[in-house]
Amino acid sequence: MMKQLSQVISQIKPVEPEWQARAQERLDFLTKPRGSLGRLEELAARYVAIRGELFPPLQKKQVVVFAADHGVVAEGVSAYPQDVTHQMVLNFLRGGAGINVLARYAGAAVEVVDIGVNHDFGAQPGLISRKVAYGSRNMAQEPALTMDEAVQAVMVGLERAQAAVTAGADVLAAGDMGIGNTTPAAALGVVFTGKPSSTITGRGTGIDDKAWSHKVAIINRALELNRPDANNPLEVLAKVGGLEIAGITGFILGAAANRRPLLLDGFIATAGALVAAQLAPAVTDYLIAAHRSVEAGHQIMLDALGQKPLLNFQMRLGEGTGAALGMSLLEAGIRIYHEMATFAEAGVAEKQP
Amino acid sequence: MMKQLSQVISQIKPVEPEWQARAQERLDFLTKPRGSLGRLEELAARYVAIRGELFPPLQKKQVVVFAADHGVVAEGVSAYPQDVTHQMVLNFLRGGAGINVLARYAGAAVEVVDIGVNHDFGAQPGLISRKVAYGSRNMAQEPALTMDEAVQAVMVGLERAQAAVTAGADVLAAGDMGIGNTTPAAALGVVFTGKPSSTITGRGTGIDDKAWSHKVAIINRALELNRPDANNPLEVLAKVGGLEIAGITGFILGAAANRRPLLLDGFIATAGALVAAQLAPAVTDYLIAAHRSVEAGHQIMLDALGQKPLLNFQMRLGEGTGAALGMSLLEAGIRIYHEMATFAEAGVAEKQP
Repeated sequence: MMKQLSQVISQIKPVEPEWQARAQERLDFLTKPRGSLGRLEELAARYVAIRGELFPPLQKKQVVVFAADHGVVAEGVSAYPQDVTHQMVLNFLRGGAGINVLARYAGAAVEVVDIGVNHDFGAQPGLISRKVAYGSRNMAQEPALTMDEAVQAVMVGLERAQAAVTAGADVLAAGDMGIGNTTPAAALGVVFTGKPSSTITGRGTGIDDKAWSHKVAIINRALELNRPDANNPLEVLAKVGGLEIAGITGFILGAAANRRPLLLDGFIATAGALVAAQLAPAVTDYLIAAHRSVEAGHQIMLDALGQKPLLNFQMRLGEGTGAALGMSLLEAGIRIYHEMATFAEAGVAEKQP
Repeated sequence: MMKQLSQVISQIKPVEPEWQARAQERLDFLTKPRGSLGRLEELAARYVAIRGELFPPLQKKQVVVFAADHGVVAEGVSAYPQDVTHQMVLNFLRGGAGINVLARYAGAAVEVVDIGVNHDFGAQPGLISRKVAYGSRNMAQEPALTMDEAVQAVMVGLERAQAAVTAGADVLAAGDMGIGNTTPAAALGVVFTGKPSSTITGRGTGIDDKAWSHKVAIINRALELNRPDANNPLEVLAKVGGLEIAGITGFILGAAANRRPLLLDGFIATAGALVAAQLAPAVTDYLIAAHRSVEAGHQIMLDALGQKPLLNFQMRLGEGTGAALGMSLLEAGIRIYHEMATFAEAGVAEKQP
């Protein structure tokens, strides 16, 4: 399993800047002042470079939501009961959640993966069952996962990225569902950015000041107990991560290995990306940060990955909702690139010398 | 004509805040932590309040592009020749311009209005011919428009908003085309914000430092010569405005009078909005600022209108391109509002007390 993972990691190459330059050349022929479509042009050029072809299609968009539970909820870090994780999985399967609506808006398909929910779903049409465990353990008392569980979950993510690309996906996004998951995500943020937990930790689904201080204390306790080493990212993932975060890490590695852009969602997905970037620094070339979350540490984590978010919409839902909006904006950029007339085609005079 | 205009202005009422509260109540029943979809929720609630009904449809989106020329280009304020205005009108009619692509992306129709282009188009299928004059006069030497021309152009805008709403438009956006039009737009910005022209004036389609200093000097000369009075907005529009800007002013008034949201584009459209807001302060309740333009004074002008842009995409094309992106984001918010399941429908537990 580790061998297969190493192989994928070795496939992840930096994007070649020549492609971006060639795309910009085409953009400069279109009937508009040079650069006047700003980040839409940047999105188009990055997409060309990521795909490594001058007119890449953008037909099929795939969102994969990884769901898992977290033992650390026993410490009272979340405003919602743990049952909400499995209830929301059912809501995803019925199409009633935020990610379903925004994926339909963006023209994306949604896949839901049970990678570690503390619930037996039985036969659920549409659910991808890849349960590694019935949730993680309480990281404030012991490592959240064994190394084997962490690697297994990363491999599930890899597999789902590979499956999406095999089925024709042009662009990918990973979403999360897991009551309590801002706590391990913040712990990962602390380890990989080196910032104090009070700077990285936010209010998740909506806790008050007292609960927030408690959450910071729990994260500090977990870090002191587990002493994760940032230079061993899989160990960090096992000690203070979670199964859906590990799935997202694998999914991001799989996207980059297949030269597909990964629309980066909010706080949880970005924690997964920090692990992926530690394993394979070139993955950052394949990330498109969709939005800046309300969650305190998100911007710091995006900065660590060198990403500038497209939107600042005060969102904090997760599920891949921000990434779905980003997919739609990416499409706008690609359509400009494909569909606008050139100066020559339109008979429009160019800028005066 | 002035009587009809006064009548429309008297129809523009502030939005009733109760509607926004009722919309937020529904949003709070949906399967997500309260407020966790941030500005998407805000967009949905504002749309409900603007329309004044609990489940307003969002089917038909209309972009109207007003095109006109500017006598002030004789002073060498633009990087492009004046012919580009009519060439771009033809590009719009053939569907090859940025606004055509982004309107298709957003599912919006595009109407093109010749309100003052310095060119005889002859019979052009699809072009709405409402030419008030063959462009404005050189405002650095005389008033850009007569009062009669300015009012006539405002009435054209009103008429096109009315026509769009009669044809079923749920949401409106105004775009601009007019080589040289960042110069009158900056002059209007100076008059209505009281800030110096060096703060408001930007580089338009892309001029260098020397040309920028010249542009600032030309704006100052026009303001000294014409001495527009901010308390007489139509006079300001005539003295240092332009025909497409006047059309946009009328279009915005027409949108607000008909309780339709107006997606506000960039620098030029915002100059038109400043005039509209001076005529009828309640129009600001109907504006949704789509993006922050690169153009220097745009944020200051948005602040004066109390608007917070949705996007900061480094765009500076005009044509309504930013507004089209905003229409799409508005749709995302409305779809959340209409399509997400409630906690009760989905059988999901609510927040713990």
